[in-house]
This record gives sequence, structure tokens and C-alpha cells, in this order.
Amino acid sequence: MRNVAVVGVGQTKFGEHWDKSIRDMIIEAGLAAVRDAKIERGDVQSLFIGCMSSGRYAGQEHLGALAADSLGMRVPATRFEGACASGSLAFRNAYVDVASGRHDCAIVIGAEKMTDVKGPEAITSLAAAGDQEWEAAIGLTFAGLYALMARKHMNDFGTTREQLAMVSVNNHKNGVANKNAQFRMPISVDDVLKSSIVADPLRLLDCSPITDGAAALVIMSENLAKKAANPVWILGSGQGSDTIALHDRASFTEMAATRTAAKEALSEAKININDLNMIEVHDCFSINEIIALEDLGFCEKGKGGRFVEDGNIDINGKIPVNTTGGLKAGGHPVGATGVRQAIDIVRQLRGDSCNQLKNPLYGMNLNVGGSGATAVVNIFGREMKQ
Amino acid sequence: MRNVAVVGVGQTKFGEHWDKSIRDMIIEAGLAAVRDAKIERGDVQSLFIGCMSSGRYAGQEHLGALAADSLGMRVPATRFEGACASGSLAFRNAYVDVASGRHDCAIVIGAEKMTDVKGPEAITSLAAAGDQEWEAAIGLTFAGLYALMARKHMNDFGTTREQLAMVSVNNHKNGVANKNAQFRMPISVDDVLKSSIVADPLRLLDCSPITDGAAALVIMSENLAKKAANPVWILGSGQGSDTIALHDRASFTEMAATRTAAKEALSEAKININDLNMIEVHDCFSINEIIALEDLGFCEKGKGGRFVEDGNIDINGKIPVNTTGGLKAGGHPVGATGVRQAIDIVRQLRGDSCNQLKNPLYGMNLNVGGSGATAVVNIFGREMKQ
Repeated sequence: MRNVAVVGVGQTKFGEHWDKSIRDMIIEAGLAAVRDAKIERGDVQSLFIGCMSSGRYAGQEHLGALAADSLGMRVPATRFEGACASGSLAFRNAYVDVASGRHDCAIVIGAEKMTDVKGPEAITSLAAAGDQEWEAAIGLTFAGLYALMARKHMNDFGTTREQLAMVSVNNHKNGVANKNAQFRMPISVDDVLKSSIVADPLRLLDCSPITDGAAALVIMSENLAKKAANPVWILGSGQGSDTIALHDRASFTEMAATRTAAKEALSEAKININDLNMIEVHDCFSINEIIALEDLGFCEKGKGGRFVEDGNIDINGKIPVNTTGGLKAGGHPVGATGVRQAIDIVRQLRGDSCNQLKNPLYGMNLNVGGSGATAVVNIFGREMKQ
Repeated sequence: MRNVAVVGVGQTKFGEHWDKSIRDMIIEAGLAAVRDAKIERGDVQSLFIGCMSSGRYAGQEHLGALAADSLGMRVPATRFEGACASGSLAFRNAYVDVASGRHDCAIVIGAEKMTDVKGPEAITSLAAAGDQEWEAAIGLTFAGLYALMARKHMNDFGTTREQLAMVSVNNHKNGVANKNAQFRMPISVDDVLKSSIVADPLRLLDCSPITDGAAALVIMSENLAKKAANPVWILGSGQGSDTIALHDRASFTEMAATRTAAKEALSEAKININDLNMIEVHDCFSINEIIALEDLGFCEKGKGGRFVEDGNIDINGKIPVNTTGGLKAGGHPVGATGVRQAIDIVRQLRGDSCNQLKNPLYGMNLNVGGSGATAVVNIFGREMKQ
């Protein structure tokens, strides 16, 4: 397997794009990535797109072909779906495609256009990421699933309502400087506690929003990437699975898929979790960021709330988390999120991010599908793997 | 890249399964493939599933996780979508996964449950494989798209209505012996000509049906597969793209994506088109089988109708086509079709097919997505590639 690097990134602003179709957003993000990579469209040899539910949200399946056609790339094009982890599945498969030598240059796109359906339908469509027969059909929405996890975490470990709020506060603080973020206003713990209840104990400001957006990046094999202006290297990738229904799990407060994915990625990257200088985690709901910090090994199981409260995830903390605002402030166009996470790590590592960290060497993203049935972890580094 | 073989196959009967969910069908096909491979579920290391539109047909996305969970396989699981070519995209990516050394044993599944929605909704959902904004929105269904191709083919090349009918006649003849086929009755040219018009010139018996079904196969790397009872080797794989909308093409009577995919697959397999002993092609509508025979190079462009009329595609002809009934008689659960095609080639090559050919060495399948925006070709052989 060959070394592979990200050589270009691009995205739309995340938000409500009433004037843009999913095709428009794919073109905007894809061409931005090509321009950033300083290549021609004709240099791209294969296309990978992650999208959860364009069939329901936009009446459009066959998104690989749509993307390749719209971008003027007559290349093999495939769509990947794994609920909210769709973007990272596209990324991971593109990485294998180039690492294995099948192609030398690939484009990865993530996209979702969620606001063209009515509110309740957006929620019903998202519920298709869970178990339709045993969860969605009885009215269990995703806010409901994560509320169960939050309640159990509070019960078992004493995690406080305030600690959950601090997750959102940190994400919003980081999002202020991000011109692509959906929400750029700072919020306080009090704001979260006073926001309306969505699914007790989760309130509105614990929940990532419904978002339109697309993100794209260009990857290349070692021989080509070495000539690129500012390559960021993919050091490892891991993917884990768990039961699709929450009720089938041994634990409501831990995601086995995250542990599996992280172990595989770290092993391939040949680094330890504490070598990382920053991470992007999947804060679809505030509780998930706390669970992720525990499962990734930054603190013991049950200590995630305290870890957040102690300031460890701040931009200047022990491990800066979601330095551009995460899903909460940045927005969560589900199929695009994994690719956006990768972009924001790449920009930190190459030095042109908002809230720029000082000389980070390693970054990791964790992208979770459903209530944890799929998890993908990718690790990036400023230097090539030897 | 390592050699890879198919070592086990399984499927549900194709048809209208009012008593089975998409989950039930995935379990039935998946476990049948595992049993046929004479392995344990725990031997499978990764899962690839192709499905076009379970979100719309079954209210269920996140199908990789659902399949892995339902089959009791806690392995990385990914869904692939490329309209009616979804099954072959899953197959192709599984092949790369094992060939590249990432995993040693993978399961490939294709599934679609289409009959749980009302008739018009099934057609609208299928139209999502075309260009939603420029085709589906103005009422252009898939029968309509292929009718345009048929009319143009008849106009430009003198292809006759009877020759189109002969495609369906041959597929139905081959389907009689196939216990998994949706329709097992022979039909005559006259039956086709007298069936009701769907989209002129295409009639009901030119069109593949709406079908429920799942198909699965197990693949292994060379070192493991050598010990299997009856491995069939994957010799090559190719994937091509074209514009998603038919009106953007230079020609209505040829599929550039097919030519691209076949060229890549043949080159990797290091064989010529005339080395093949049988093929499975994508006869979603009768005209598409004629176009496929031309684009694959079995006859000149425009001569496909005559090629069929001369008996070349019969089970005893120059190149037996769709020896188990194809999409027309066998049924077309869209996401499952590519995997079913692979299964039927494997069974011919290992010698346990209905309508068994005498010692075939090489087989190929062509799986087409939409009106030709995606095409995947896979080539199989009884002997390993050297």
C-alpha cells in the first residue's frame, strides 16, 4: 500500500441554502477542492461521494454519476452510505483506492441537501439511520436515542446537565471565527439550560442543526503528492460496526464501533492517542462528544463530563476538540460532515485554519453513523508515514 | 494486488415477497452464501452491500450496519449506491478490499424490497436514478428513457419490433429452469407484440418487473480460496461513467460507460471479448440487451437486432446470454441484480447452474445504472490469473 495525501480542499458554507440544489453544492465544493489542489479536473481519476439520503431529501439517487457529470469528470463514480458517517466512508474507500494503486488521484465529496423537505419529514428521514422496524416505527427519533444515552450517562456517572452544556458552549466559541459555520454566535451554559427541551434531558442547544452543505477534497498517491504545495498525509483509517438498534447493546454509554475504528486507525498510523494535537469528533448531540472522548481514551469511561468541565477540550487545552465549531455550531449536512471534519484537520495541519493551532503534527476525526452502529476514524499527519 | 475468488453464493427467490422485510431477505441470502462457502459467520472480515433506494422503498438507510447486525457479523460494513448498478459497485469494492490485502474474506450482498410502496411510487423512486431536475421532474420514467433509445435504434439501424421481442423470448426461455426466477413461463414473439404498450415502442413484455430479492456471495484471497471446494476467480473489474441525463449524450444508441468498463475489465483479466463463454447483461428493457451486445463488441453497432435474430445469444449460440433468464424473466430487485448476475456466472463456471453450459472457462457480467450513467463489468474465470 502506498502513501496518500490530501492536496486540496473546498466546501460550501454550511447553512440553509434555499437557492441551491444538491447538484449546485456538489459543483461548488468540488471545483473549490480542484482549484485548491492546483490541478485540472481532468487529472482526477476516480470519484467517491458520501450522502445519506438524497433519495428522500432531493428525489435524487445515483449521486456518483450526478457528481461526476456535473463536475465534468468522466471517471468511475460511486456513492457511499452509512448514515451520518457516509462522508468518511467515501473518504476511507477513496484512500484504499489510491493506496492500493488502482488510481493516482481521486476526489472525495460529501453532500446533503436537507431543507427542501418539511421539518417533520427531515426528522423522519434521519430516523432511517436507526432501526426502522424496531426504533423509528415506534417514534424513537435521533434526539430521543441520544437522550436515552445522556440520561443513562448522568445516572451512572453523575455527569451534570451543565457539563453537557459546556460541550455546546465550546463548539459555539470555536465556530465564531469559522466563516463556513452555520451559527457564529457564542452561547453560554445558561443559554443552553434555558433553551427549549427537545428530548429530555437534551435541549435545543444540545442538538446539531438541519443543514445544507457540501465538502470536497482531492487526494493523491505519494509520487504525485510530493510535488504538491502543501500535502497532508493520511496515516491510518479504521471502521467499526455495532448493532443498529440501541436496545441491543450491552451499554448505552459507550460505542464499541468507535473503539474498534480508533484501534485500527492508530495501529495503521503507528501513533498513540496522546500523540494527537487535535481531534474532530461527532457532536451530533452534546452527549456524543463526551462519550467519544471516553471511548477514544482521552479520559476514563464516565469522566468525560469532568474532562470537558476542566477545560481540556478548549482550543488551548490538553486536546483541542472541534476547533472550527463541530457539528453543533458548524452545521451537520449529514453526508458532508465526515469530509468537512477531514478538511478542517487538513487546514489545521497545513496552517491555514481559523483558530489556527501552533504547529500541530497529528489530527484525527471520528465520524459516527446512527446511534453508533457505524464509526469511522481517520488519522492525518504533516509528515509522511515511513 | 492479490488474486481473489468467489467461494460461496446464496440468494432468495426473486419475486413479490409480501411476507418478508428487506432485513429478512438480507439474512436469508447472506446465510445461504456463508453455508455455501462452508465457513462460519465469524470468518467474514468485511461487508459490502449494494442497494439503490431502501430509504424510499423501506424507510431504512444505514443498510451496511443493518446487514452486519442482522447477520451477526461485527465487521466494517458499507452500503454502495449507483442506481441499478449498486450490487456490482459493492462487488467491485469488495474485490479491491480483498485484493489490496486489507481483508482476507468479505461478504457482498445486494438487496432491494420494492413492493411495499404503491405502484406509482415504485416508478417515481426508480426515476431518481436519472436526472431528477431535468428528466424525472418532467415525467420521463425509465421506460420512457429506454423507449427513446429503442425508437432511435429502430430509426437509425432498422432494428425491428420483432427483434426486440426476441430478446425477451430468449430470456423467458432461459428462465423456465431457474427456480429462483420471478417468471418461469415461456413467451412467444407474438405474446410480446400483443402485450400492452408501456412507452411506445416498448411493451409490457419488453420491461423487467418490479421485484423483491436479495443475493449474496463470499469472496476470499488466494491463499484461503485455494483451500475452498470450488473457487471461481475474479479476473478483472471495470467501471465507467457517462452523463446522468440521456439528452446530454452524443448518442442515444450507445453507452460509453459500458465500453469504458469493459475495456478496463478485459485489460485487467488479460483476455479478449471472444474468449468469453457466457455473459450476463443488463436487460432492464429489451433494447438494452441489444445495445449491450454492440457496445461489448459481440457485433457491430446497429447489428444487435440481427445478432439476436440469428440465434447467437441462445444457450447453444455463439455467446449464451443471460442463461438463467436475465432481469426480464429472473426479476430485477435493482440493488440485488449485479450480485445475482455474478452468482449465476459463478454457478455456470463451477458447474451447478440451471441450463448448465459444457465446461465454460470465462464469464462476464455487465450491470448498468440509470440510462447508462454508470456501468460495471466484472470478469470471472475457472482458473486463477497468473
